[in-house]
Amino acid sequence: MEIGLIGLGRMGYNLGLNILDHEHQLVAYDVNREAVKEIGLAGAKEADSLEELVSKLSAPRKIWVMVPAGDITENVVSQLSSLLDEGDVVIDGGNANYKDTLRRAKQYEAKGLHFVDAGTSGGIDGAREGACLMVGGTKEVVESLAPLLKEIAVEDGYLYTGPVGSGHFLKMIHNGIEYGMMQAIAEGFDLLENSPFDYDYEAVAKVWNNGSVIRSWLMELTESAFSKDANLEKIRGVMHSSGEGKWTVETALDLQIEAPVIALSLMMRYRSLRDDTFSGKVVAALRNEFGGHAVVKS
Amino acid sequence: MEIGLIGLGRMGYNLGLNILDHEHQLVAYDVNREAVKEIGLAGAKEADSLEELVSKLSAPRKIWVMVPAGDITENVVSQLSSLLDEGDVVIDGGNANYKDTLRRAKQYEAKGLHFVDAGTSGGIDGAREGACLMVGGTKEVVESLAPLLKEIAVEDGYLYTGPVGSGHFLKMIHNGIEYGMMQAIAEGFDLLENSPFDYDYEAVAKVWNNGSVIRSWLMELTESAFSKDANLEKIRGVMHSSGEGKWTVETALDLQIEAPVIALSLMMRYRSLRDDTFSGKVVAALRNEFGGHAVVKS
Amino acid sequence: MEIGLIGLGRMGYNLGLNILDHEHQLVAYDVNREAVKEIGLAGAKEADSLEELVSKLSAPRKIWVMVPAGDITENVVSQLSSLLDEGDVVIDGGNANYKDTLRRAKQYEAKGLHFVDAGTSGGIDGAREGACLMVGGTKEVVESLAPLLKEIAVEDGYLYTGPVGSGHFLKMIHNGIEYGMMQAIAEGFDLLENSPFDYDYEAVAKVWNNGSVIRSWLMELTESAFSKDANLEKIRGVMHSSGEGKWTVETALDLQIEAPVIALSLMMRYRSLRDDTFSGKVVAALRNEFGGHAVVKS
Amino acid sequence: MEIGLIGLGRMGYNLGLNILDHEHQLVAYDVNREAVKEIGLAGAKEADSLEELVSKLSAPRKIWVMVPAGDITENVVSQLSSLLDEGDVVIDGGNANYKDTLRRAKQYEAKGLHFVDAGTSGGIDGAREGACLMVGGTKEVVESLAPLLKEIAVEDGYLYTGPVGSGHFLKMIHNGIEYGMMQAIAEGFDLLENSPFDYDYEAVAKVWNNGSVIRSWLMELTESAFSKDANLEKIRGVMHSSGEGKWTVETALDLQIEAPVIALSLMMRYRSLRDDTFSGKVVAALRNEFGGHAVVKS
Repeated sequence: MEIGLIGLGRMGYNLGLNILDHEHQLVAYDVNREAVKEIGLAGAKEADSLEELVSKLSAPRKIWVMVPAGDITENVVSQLSSLLDEGDVVIDGGNANYKDTLRRAKQYEAKGLHFVDAGTSGGIDGAREGACLMVGGTKEVVESLAPLLKEIAVEDGYLYTGPVGSGHFLKMIHNGIEYGMMQAIAEGFDLLENSPFDYDYEAVAKVWNNGSVIRSWLMELTESAFSKDANLEKIRGVMHSSGEGKWTVETALDLQIEAPVIALSLMMRYRSLRDDTFSGKVVAALRNEFGGHAVVKS
Repeated sequence: MEIGLIGLGRMGYNLGLNILDHEHQLVAYDVNREAVKEIGLAGAKEADSLEELVSKLSAPRKIWVMVPAGDITENVVSQLSSLLDEGDVVIDGGNANYKDTLRRAKQYEAKGLHFVDAGTSGGIDGAREGACLMVGGTKEVVESLAPLLKEIAVEDGYLYTGPVGSGHFLKMIHNGIEYGMMQAIAEGFDLLENSPFDYDYEAVAKVWNNGSVIRSWLMELTESAFSKDANLEKIRGVMHSSGEGKWTVETALDLQIEAPVIALSLMMRYRSLRDDTFSGKVVAALRNEFGGHAVVKS
Repeated sequence: MEIGLIGLGRMGYNLGLNILDHEHQLVAYDVNREAVKEIGLAGAKEADSLEELVSKLSAPRKIWVMVPAGDITENVVSQLSSLLDEGDVVIDGGNANYKDTLRRAKQYEAKGLHFVDAGTSGGIDGAREGACLMVGGTKEVVESLAPLLKEIAVEDGYLYTGPVGSGHFLKMIHNGIEYGMMQAIAEGFDLLENSPFDYDYEAVAKVWNNGSVIRSWLMELTESAFSKDANLEKIRGVMHSSGEGKWTVETALDLQIEAPVIALSLMMRYRSLRDDTFSGKVVAALRNEFGGHAVVKS
Repeated sequence: MEIGLIGLGRMGYNLGLNILDHEHQLVAYDVNREAVKEIGLAGAKEADSLEELVSKLSAPRKIWVMVPAGDITENVVSQLSSLLDEGDVVIDGGNANYKDTLRRAKQYEAKGLHFVDAGTSGGIDGAREGACLMVGGTKEVVESLAPLLKEIAVEDGYLYTGPVGSGHFLKMIHNGIEYGMMQAIAEGFDLLENSPFDYDYEAVAKVWNNGSVIRSWLMELTESAFSKDANLEKIRGVMHSSGEGKWTVETALDLQIEAPVIALSLMMRYRSLRDDTFSGKVVAALRNEFGGHAVVKS
C-alpha cells in the first residue's frame, strides 16, 4: 500500500519505520527537514511540504497524520482538506479530543473526504515494533486500511471500534485508566519508601511481575526505571500531563458518571507542578485563627 | 461549684478564666508553674502537684482535664485514678480518641470513679467567652455538672450526647467536618488566586459572610486572616493536623462508610508537608519509560 | 430607580418583591402569565412580552434577567440585544457559566449595550429579604446600579467584583465551596448515623450552631431539616446538581489547579443518581476471576 | 522437604497440590475433614488435628498456615506455639495485617520458635501453578526454606523481602495497588458503557491486552469476564473487600503519606454496599432548604 505520513516525532518516525518494514511505500513530511532526510535514508520518499506529499501520492490517497494534538493537528487537517480529492482518506493517529475529531470528520464528509481516527497506544516501542490500534471511521474505509493497520499493530492489537470518533474516545479512556494505574503503582511505592522496611524496589517490581495479580507492562516499566536509578534520586516528582486524562475527567462530568480515581490521579499531577499552594495557606491561616496553631513562615 | 482544672495551655487557661467568671471555686494545676501562678492571680487556688490538687478539693471531686491527647492524657488520667475516691468525677475536655475514652471509662468504673468526656469546640475564644460542649457520660453524673457546663458554654452550646464516649466521638466528627469545610473554602480561594480575575480576598470573604449560602464562622476567620495578610504572602501552605481528622477517617474505614471529602482533606494536608513525593517520581519515571517524556532532574 | 425584571420563578419573584419593598418601579415579565399577574398585584407594572417590557421602560433601561441558565438565558439575552438601545443595561442575575457571560458581554459591547453579571446567593429567603450579590461589569455602569443593588442585598452583602465575568466566576466558586461544605456536613452525619451511638441529629446540629468551629448557615439549615424529619426517613439520598459545581471542576482542570474536595463532592452526587454501577460490576467480576470471590447476582 | 499445611481452602488446597507436584512430603490438616481426605488422595499425609499434624512432622518442623486472617489465624498460630519445639518454623502464607505478624513473631521468638511471613499473590491459579511469594523473616530461616519456596513460585516469583513483617507489608501494598488498578479499569469501562458509542467490551479488553500501555493480567481477567457475560448483566456492582485495602489506607494515615487513589478505590467499594446513603439525604435536604429544590421521596 502507498501511504503518506505527516509528523516524524518520536511516535511518527518509529511508526514510519514500522510501515517501511512491512514493505509499503511511504511518503513522509515533517516541518523538521532533518527528520525527513533521515527517514528518506530508511527508504521513504521525502516531501518538503504538504503539497508535495499530496502530489506524490496517487488517488485515493491515504495519509497518516501523527502530529501534536490541538492547533497543529487542526492546521494540518484543515490544510489537507483543501489539497485532497474526493475519496482520499486522512487517518489521525494522534491524541485528539474526540469532539474535535467528530467536528473534523463532519467537515471532511462535506467535501467527500474520509476521516479516520486511530487511537495509538504502546509508546515509542509499540510504534516501532507493533502498536495497539483502536480505529474508528466508516466501516468500508477502515476495512480498506485494515491490512496495513494489522501489520503495523502487534498481533491482535488492532480493533475496529465503530463510527468515527470512537477510536479517539477509546484511546482517551485507555489513557484515563493509565493515569489511574500509574498513580496506584506510584502510591504503593511511596508507602514502601516511607515504611519501616527497606525494600529493593527493582526486586519488588520484578517479583510483582512474576505471578502477582498486578503484573503488567507498567510494572515492567517500573522495574526498568528502578534498574536505572534504584531510588529515583536523580529526578523530581513533577508529573506533567498531555490532555487525555483531562479529557477523560471532562467526559465523566459530561456523562454525569463518577470517576474518582482517574480524577484524583490527574489532580495529584497538577499538585506536583506546584511548590506551594494557596489552598494550603488558607488552611494554615485558619488553623492559626481559631486554634492559635503556629504557621510556617514563607 | 468547686472544680479542679489540670492543664493550663491555650485552651485550659482560658477555660479556667471562664469558670472563674462564673464565680466557681477553681483549683488549678499545670506542669508549667508560671501558668499556675498566673491563674492564681486571677482567683484560682494554686496546686503544685496532682496530689495537692486532689487534696484541695472536697469529695465528691470534679476535675476537668485539659491536656494534650495521647500519652499526657493517659498519664494524668491514670495517676488521678489512684488518687481519687469513689464517686469522684474526671471530665476529659481534650481531644481524645473515643476508643481511649471508652477504655479509660471502663477502668474508672471498675474503681467506682466517674469518667465524663466533654468534646470542646470553639477555639481559644470559645474557651474564654463561651465554648461549644458535647458531653457524654452517665446521665446523672453529667446532669450534676450541667449547671456549670451550661455557664461556661455559649447559650445553647451545651449538649448531653449520651453514654461515655459519645462526647468525644461527636467532637471527632465535628472536626472531620471542619477539615472538609476548611479544604472546600481553601480550594475555592486557590481557584480565585489562579483565575483570570483579580479579587480582593478579604472583600470576597466579607461579602460571602453577608447573605450567602456559605456564610459561616470559618468564613469569618478567613476574612480576618485576609485582613491581616491580604494575599497570605507571609506564610507557607503547610497544613499540620492533630489527630481528629485521622481518627474520623479511621472510623469511616471501621464503619465501612465512605467519607471521601474528609479523607481527601486530610490527605491534602499530608501532601502539603512534603516538598517532593516518591509517587511523583514513579509517575515521572514511567512517563519517561513509555513515552520518552522528559523528566525534571533533581 | 426604574427596573425591568424578566423571570418570576422562585428566585426572580422574591427578588421582585424585594425591589418593590425599596420603592423602585418594577416592570415584570415571565412566560408564566399567572406569575406576572401576581407580582402586578404587589405593585409591579405587568408586561406580556419582552417587547412590551422594553417599551414600558425609559432609556437608559436597566433590566434584570433571572431565568434558568443555558438555552433560556441565551434566548432572552439574545432577543433583548435586538430590542434595546445604546446605553441600556442588562444584568444577568442567574447562574450562568462565566465563559458564556464573557461571550455575551462582547456581543453587547459591540452594539453599545452594557452587560452586567450579578452572582446572587442566599437562596429564596435571601432573594426576598436581602441577597448576597457579587457583581461584575464596567465600573461606571455597575456604580450607577449600586444604590439599588445595595438595597436589595443584605447589609455588606454587595461587592463589585471587577470586569464583566468576575461576578459569575465568583458565584461559581462560591457554589463549588458550597458543594464541598455540604458534602463534609453530610459525611459527618452519615458517620453519626452508622456509629455505635444514638444521637439526636437536630440537637447535634443545634449545639454545633452555638459556639462550635463549624457553625454556619448550612448547619442552621441542617438543624431546620432535622427539625422537620428527625432521621430524614421521608426522602431518598438522591443528590441533583445544577451546573455550578461541574463548572467549578472544569475550571480547576483548565487552570491545572487541584480541587479534590469539590470534585469528589460533585462525583458523589453523580453516584447518588445511580442504583448500580458498571464500574462496580467490573470490580466484582474481577474479584471473582482471580480469587473466586462470590458475586451478587442481579 | 517435609512440610505441614494447615488450611485447605481455595488457596491452601491448591498450594498443597503445587507442593506435592514438586515431590515434597506434605502433612495436611483442615477443620473440614473432606478437604483433608481429598488432598490425602492426591498424596498428602492426613492429620485430624493440629496435634496430629505436629506429631507427624520431624523436627525442625516447617508448617505453612493458610487460613483466613483475623481470629482464625490468631487461634492457629497461638495453638501451634504451644505444640512446637524450639527451632520449628511457622510460615503464615495468609493475608495477615503486618502489625499482627510483628506481634506474633515476637511471641514466637520468645519461645525459640521461628515465624516467617509469606505474602502470596496470584489468586487460585497462582497457588496451583506458581505463585508470587514475598517472604519476610530471619534470613537464615527463610534461606532454609528457599528451595521449596522457589519451586512453588512461578519463575522469578519469589523474593526475600527482609525481616519478619516485611512480607505481609509488601503483600498489603500489592493489594492496595490492586484496588487502585481495578477501580481505574472499572471507571474506564463505566465511561464506555455510558458513552455515545457502542463498544464490544471483550474486544476492547483484548485489544488493550495486545500492545497497549495498560496491558496487564487484570485486563486479561477483564477480557475473560466479558467473554462469559458480555455486558455483565448477570451480576450486581457490589464490591466487597477483605481487609488489605483498608490496612493499606490505615498505613498511609499512620505514615502521613497521601494515597488518594487507593483510599478512593476502597471508599467506592463501601459505597457500593449501600442502596442509599444518609449523606445523600442530608445534601438533598439542604438543597431543598435553601433552594426549594425538590427531593425524591423514599
